Amino acid sequence: MPRTESSTPTVRDVAQLAGVSPGTVSKALNGRGQLREETRQRVQDAADKLGFHPNQLAKSLIEGRTYTVGVLTTASFGRFTMPLMTGIEDSLGAGKVSTLFCDSRGDPLRERHYLQELLSRRVDGLVVTGRKPDPRHSLGRLPIPVVYALTQSEDDGDLSMTYDDRQGAELATNHLIAVGRKRIAYVSGPTRHLSTRLRQQGTEDALEAAGMKLDPRDVLLGEWSEAWGRTAAGILIRQAEPIPVDGIFCGSDQIARGVADGLREAGVDVPRQVAIVGFDNWDVMVQGSRPPLTTIDPNLTMLGQLAANRLLNAIDGGELGSGHILRPCDLVLRQSSMSS
Amino acid sequence: MPRTESSTPTVRDVAQLAGVSPGTVSKALNGRGQLREETRQRVQDAADKLGFHPNQLAKSLIEGRTYTVGVLTTASFGRFTMPLMTGIEDSLGAGKVSTLFCDSRGDPLRERHYLQELLSRRVDGLVVTGRKPDPRHSLGRLPIPVVYALTQSEDDGDLSMTYDDRQGAELATNHLIAVGRKRIAYVSGPTRHLSTRLRQQGTEDALEAAGMKLDPRDVLLGEWSEAWGRTAAGILIRQAEPIPVDGIFCGSDQIARGVADGLREAGVDVPRQVAIVGFDNWDVMVQGSRPPLTTIDPNLTMLGQLAANRLLNAIDGGELGSGHILRPCDLVLRQSSMSS
Repeated sequence: MPRTESSTPTVRDVAQLAGVSPGTVSKALNGRGQLREETRQRVQDAADKLGFHPNQLAKSLIEGRTYTVGVLTTASFGRFTMPLMTGIEDSLGAGKVSTLFCDSRGDPLRERHYLQELLSRRVDGLVVTGRKPDPRHSLGRLPIPVVYALTQSEDDGDLSMTYDDRQGAELATNHLIAVGRKRIAYVSGPTRHLSTRLRQQGTEDALEAAGMKLDPRDVLLGEWSEAWGRTAAGILIRQAEPIPVDGIFCGSDQIARGVADGLREAGVDVPRQVAIVGFDNWDVMVQGSRPPLTTIDPNLTMLGQLAANRLLNAIDGGELGSGHILRPCDLVLRQSSMSS
Repeated sequence: MPRTESSTPTVRDVAQLAGVSPGTVSKALNGRGQLREETRQRVQDAADKLGFHPNQLAKSLIEGRTYTVGVLTTASFGRFTMPLMTGIEDSLGAGKVSTLFCDSRGDPLRERHYLQELLSRRVDGLVVTGRKPDPRHSLGRLPIPVVYALTQSEDDGDLSMTYDDRQGAELATNHLIAVGRKRIAYVSGPTRHLSTRLRQQGTEDALEAAGMKLDPRDVLLGEWSEAWGRTAAGILIRQAEPIPVDGIFCGSDQIARGVADGLREAGVDVPRQVAIVGFDNWDVMVQGSRPPLTTIDPNLTMLGQLAANRLLNAIDGGELGSGHILRPCDLVLRQSSMSS
């Protein structure tokens, strides 16, 4: 039997079943006015029985807010935006605020269209997200608060929240130093990406603070792939016999996994001879790797929660703030850097 | 400078700037009534200048529809629901329908809460999704059309759309037979999962049609992980010397990647000695594998598009239909099954 029904129950239907006026139904379901508890219960029972739901649209028109937040992503439903969205949902879901998701897929025209659409739907606020290696254009002045999360607006008048690439790299390098490594390499993605450069800077800063240096021969920049990790391992191995580095910080878990495979297959023991730290804490990569990867967790879910909380606060009349907020990363320890 | 502004421009502001009445603004922006093109343009220019957006809420109350579809997922923002959501967006985005996403995280109470929330927001229809190994409970009779996608309702009165596990397994097995394999193994996930059993059935059907049989020793059911794939490869290798099977259909790309690693590291040549086919067409797994994996693509994006199209058609007054629709999978060829 098909499930579609053409008629939605109305206030009138509930009033008739409960034997009260439509005005009383409205009072009872909205918790307003003076009503006997018995009457309120009778109305609620009638509403439940008929499957009646108060019209949120009408409420929104009167209150001037929709309890809806728009999420505009540029980077499809990718693996970096997923945990962020889970975090946004954590914060909004608790307060009965719904999310309207729009995916511009990096197309400026599509983004403009979605923005108009979200504004005409009177969303109370907007989260702009997407993993971009470089700062993105600002949406400019809007009548609602906007938070850029996991992506940075080029305009300092906007509020942007991202994780701290440099601090993450420092954490990774300090850990390698702490487990006694004396010569540390940096294997990462394309040099044109800001995150590649920031992580190199963090690596260099941590080494310098320990009185060490990053040898230019030990900086290998390629792509964000396992294959590049294997290639880079081969380059390091061919530098000298035995392999001259004893620690490698990799710009992603995919690269780190490739490096681990390349070293193991060349007979280099990880972590005894060479300790490895990745970046992302991407479950299938860190667990699939042999050995499992010590890595940097950018705490994306937490970032989503914080961005949504800032937005909700501004919607409730609080100060939104502006500028670029950098959230710290965490170190997650596994076997690739810890001799047992 | 902070971006938040407290005042949203109104019809009155537009009317004043354009030097017309509020009624004329409404006519001009909604394309109704008789107006001179010059007047319509003047109103549009004023609206653009002020950043005025017609109120979709008011329009919705009058029309009785909100141009909003709810998406209720049980499986977080996972890697299987993401491509599905991209497909849903493909279909809805084109028609100016927005999606309200809710993630129940498998919690029935949370699901009930979200359902009430979506109904009170007067969504025009609902897509229920989530990767569940077994049919899920029905949401029952609702005043709006509902499509279950990537998950099957236990109630045949509902409309469910999933991909065809059995047909996918037949495709995989027929391909192994076509490239000349004589003894084919099936390595997959837990036997308690319906998809594990359906894929075994498909494998057996295809073999039987070719006058072959699935040897019980060649059915290895464990978990959905690379580690299990490596273990299973070891079990097959220890059966006899040389390894007695020459083709392996794996229930997931993760398992297939583990099998490929296990065989290679034991000196078994893939695909010359043993051809491998996976399931999912999950980019990081099929490309990370050595060699890259031939696999079955469940076409999740397409499934999302079709589900959303069915829903839109029902919202526009068309027949929703009911029962369980199985969509075919595709075979994607790569090196793990093709000797060059």
